[in-house]
Amino acid sequence: MDTYKKRGRPSNEAFTDSVQAGDFSSSFSSLTRGSNFKKKKETSPPIDELEKGLLEGNRSALARAITLIESNAEHHFQGAQELLHRVLPHANQSIRIGITGVPGAGKSTFIESFGSYLCNELGAKVAVLAVDPSSKLSGGSILGDKTRMEQLARNPLAFIRPSPTSGKLGGVHRKTRETMILCEAAGFDVILVETVGVGQSEVIVRDMVDFFMLLVLTGAGDELQGMKKGIMELADTIIVNKADGENKHAAKKTKAEYEKILHFLQPATKGWPSRAYVCSSLYEEGIKEVWEVIQQFIANTQTSGVFEQRRREQAKEWIYSMITDQLHYRFFGSPVVKEMLPKIENDVIAGNRTVTAVVEELFRRYTRE
Amino acid sequence: MDTYKKRGRPSNEAFTDSVQAGDFSSSFSSLTRGSNFKKKKETSPPIDELEKGLLEGNRSALARAITLIESNAEHHFQGAQELLHRVLPHANQSIRIGITGVPGAGKSTFIESFGSYLCNELGAKVAVLAVDPSSKLSGGSILGDKTRMEQLARNPLAFIRPSPTSGKLGGVHRKTRETMILCEAAGFDVILVETVGVGQSEVIVRDMVDFFMLLVLTGAGDELQGMKKGIMELADTIIVNKADGENKHAAKKTKAEYEKILHFLQPATKGWPSRAYVCSSLYEEGIKEVWEVIQQFIANTQTSGVFEQRRREQAKEWIYSMITDQLHYRFFGSPVVKEMLPKIENDVIAGNRTVTAVVEELFRRYTRE
Repeated sequence: MDTYKKRGRPSNEAFTDSVQAGDFSSSFSSLTRGSNFKKKKETSPPIDELEKGLLEGNRSALARAITLIESNAEHHFQGAQELLHRVLPHANQSIRIGITGVPGAGKSTFIESFGSYLCNELGAKVAVLAVDPSSKLSGGSILGDKTRMEQLARNPLAFIRPSPTSGKLGGVHRKTRETMILCEAAGFDVILVETVGVGQSEVIVRDMVDFFMLLVLTGAGDELQGMKKGIMELADTIIVNKADGENKHAAKKTKAEYEKILHFLQPATKGWPSRAYVCSSLYEEGIKEVWEVIQQFIANTQTSGVFEQRRREQAKEWIYSMITDQLHYRFFGSPVVKEMLPKIENDVIAGNRTVTAVVEELFRRYTRE
Repeated sequence: MDTYKKRGRPSNEAFTDSVQAGDFSSSFSSLTRGSNFKKKKETSPPIDELEKGLLEGNRSALARAITLIESNAEHHFQGAQELLHRVLPHANQSIRIGITGVPGAGKSTFIESFGSYLCNELGAKVAVLAVDPSSKLSGGSILGDKTRMEQLARNPLAFIRPSPTSGKLGGVHRKTRETMILCEAAGFDVILVETVGVGQSEVIVRDMVDFFMLLVLTGAGDELQGMKKGIMELADTIIVNKADGENKHAAKKTKAEYEKILHFLQPATKGWPSRAYVCSSLYEEGIKEVWEVIQQFIANTQTSGVFEQRRREQAKEWIYSMITDQLHYRFFGSPVVKEMLPKIENDVIAGNRTVTAVVEELFRRYTRE
């Protein structure tokens, strides 16, 4: 793991959970010390200070910087963008790993085990983020309950951040991408992005990571019922989790079944035939092997140029998805569209008007507004 | 096939190939007889005449109406929408079937055989449309060469229409949807929409049909290489074509392999387990069985309500996809966006600027313009 030696070692400050999980406005007040800042109130975050702390690998600066990025307040937007702009040259150097699986597949236990291995055995700094579009509805988030990763949460080399909530300046997608940049600037070597394999989120996460793995349980047939269509085709590796005790034999059988299906699918990454493996997060078996697979993946794709190519495409893709988000936000947020849409939908479903005609009217009135 | 008896019988007029394939402006001139029309030139198509002809099942009226819909001329737009609006109450009564498969899977031979069976054995009126987004690039279209379906093209109960080309008033997607409405108003009982299973088109077609089938050849493993990811998960049925002669045994083996994979996938239609079948389009074996499967599908989904539910969702989905198309067309067509985008992409890829910052600037300047 000499790649990690080149970079700044992590600072040993204590884990500042309260700041990390706190609301921006409350954690922000502690930063506004100078009279200069007091006058401007919260409109000018101390970007210099955050930048310095971030590049030193200061964990509480990272937490505050993320909170700034995640803020839905418009007056935080410029400061957040300025900070990102400054630290951008220090980003892009981590290995980004996406982890998905249906609820119950053991994602948190796996991340606990896998993250601890990276920290303790290899001395890597590991950040754990989450993308959970449902968090807006449920009010919580898949990582909200940090007790799920107790051991890793206490590790000084690890940083765990719950899923951000959506908001009008961009939503979960943008916030997670930008949080990755901040983590990288703070010297994190491995970024694990967790998501649930039931919605659109795994496509979003696939688009922001280098390596994507799918966690499954034994009994492929039954369990696939809850899995989103097409998800297997996004995975660079399928991990059959909970391969322990009496489950060991069944896990190996499931692994073979998944490999058979993978054989019929196009690989998620050009030149990398996706395969299945078994592991036991509980007994920490197979964890080292998963990391070896990832290292081999990185080596292969860096040699072939696929690694760099994907990162370039992801950056481009991000521009376009953000443009679409913005266009939709503006259009569907317009009062005239909001008012017209329900009636228009009913007209079309009832067969009274053509789709083309209603959309044409919608745009005529939207443009006039 | 008593469902078809309820509806108007097809007219027996000759197949007017020249009008059907002709350009709008040239075929249009023959309609502008009255001095009234001459004054207004091509701005007021004879909608009354087209409507009457269409509802009588007149094939040449249908061909001209489709040409009107497909016209990219802005002054044809209002007339086309008026016509659609008038015939809408007569639409929605056909069975819409999507057919996809990689080039070489024998789609045209299958449609030739299947369509002829429906016309000759059941007395059904069959329209064959195509969605081929590549036609713009290649200059041709997958159905351009009508010699591929010689027998069906001569059948008085059949109507074959090549893929429309894209244009600024909506593109292939809109035109095919609206052509379906016209065909239904003209009394067609079955609409077959052909597409190539290599791009985005099969997702578009899945969204406009009731039943979607995938045509494949023997040797699943090899041939899947050319197939788009996720395509199997869209299919209500997989048909292993060319199950004849020495190929018969291999086809049955391939069918079993596909069924095994289907077992692991979520069904494309709720409550309908997708299965695989063999057929020989050349020797017309298994064709009747395919129709029986479709009839069972229609019966099942109509009983469960899934059929109606899907049509309602498709109508709604169409509104939203057309809105997105329009938003993109306006945004990416704007001179300032066209000028800025390449530089912005390079800035982001080089890591000089954040995506959020460039998109924000883009929208600021777009709005000002």
